[in-house]
Amino acid sequence: MNALLVVAHGSRRETSNEEVRKLCRRIEQEAAGEEFFLVRAGFLELAEPSIPEGIGQCVEAGADRVVVLPYFLSAGRHVSEDIPAEVEEARRLHPKASIVLAPYLGSAPGVSRLLVELAVGGKKNGDSAK
Amino acid sequence: MNALLVVAHGSRRETSNEEVRKLCRRIEQEAAGEEFFLVRAGFLELAEPSIPEGIGQCVEAGADRVVVLPYFLSAGRHVSEDIPAEVEEARRLHPKASIVLAPYLGSAPGVSRLLVELAVGGKKNGDSAK
Repeated sequence: MNALLVVAHGSRRETSNEEVRKLCRRIEQEAAGEEFFLVRAGFLELAEPSIPEGIGQCVEAGADRVVVLPYFLSAGRHVSEDIPAEVEEARRLHPKASIVLAPYLGSAPGVSRLLVELAVGGKKNGDSAK
Repeated sequence: MNALLVVAHGSRRETSNEEVRKLCRRIEQEAAGEEFFLVRAGFLELAEPSIPEGIGQCVEAGADRVVVLPYFLSAGRHVSEDIPAEVEEARRLHPKASIVLAPYLGSAPGVSRLLVELAVGGKKNGDSAK
């Protein structure tokens, strides 16, 4: 039973946090019954649940494996140090679960393709608006 | 002649800025001769070139259309106000060029698919590591 925890930085602007939660619900619908039975958001700071709390919720819901994916664009301190430290804490709290840290979003090879798709769409919108 | 300007926030950490420039070079290679003859990075603050400067460089290089794409994950003030204001300034500076603002990365429908691809890769890596 695999769960996915998408980890964002967290914002004082609650609509930004809600945007991440909404994305997780969309992934859950798209990935339902395939890769992940549960997809949740977790936050490094300023919003809840925290990363260990989010992992705990996945484990309580029946996950024996939780994939933690940093929803970050660059490999700064949050990605290289803070998130791994939180994942390590969660491993101590949930020794029976397998907790795996995935690469951060910005490192995905597919990001370039996605940007071009968006940019071409934007260009077309620009055309139609003129 | 279409150019693409990928706009990031900009960081005091120069390796983060360089990560965006590197991504732009990758997009340029992948999109070479197809959608965009030139792909450049621009920064809202803390790094160069600025958005109007980046657009200016594209126009000087021969672009008659520049697609500006916010490399941001959430629709905060930067995406909704600051970047459009900079684009507006660039339009005044370059009235002959068509300058189009594309949607921000986080709004791309394909983000969910990309996250699942990354997460599944992460899961497999976790498997092989155990």
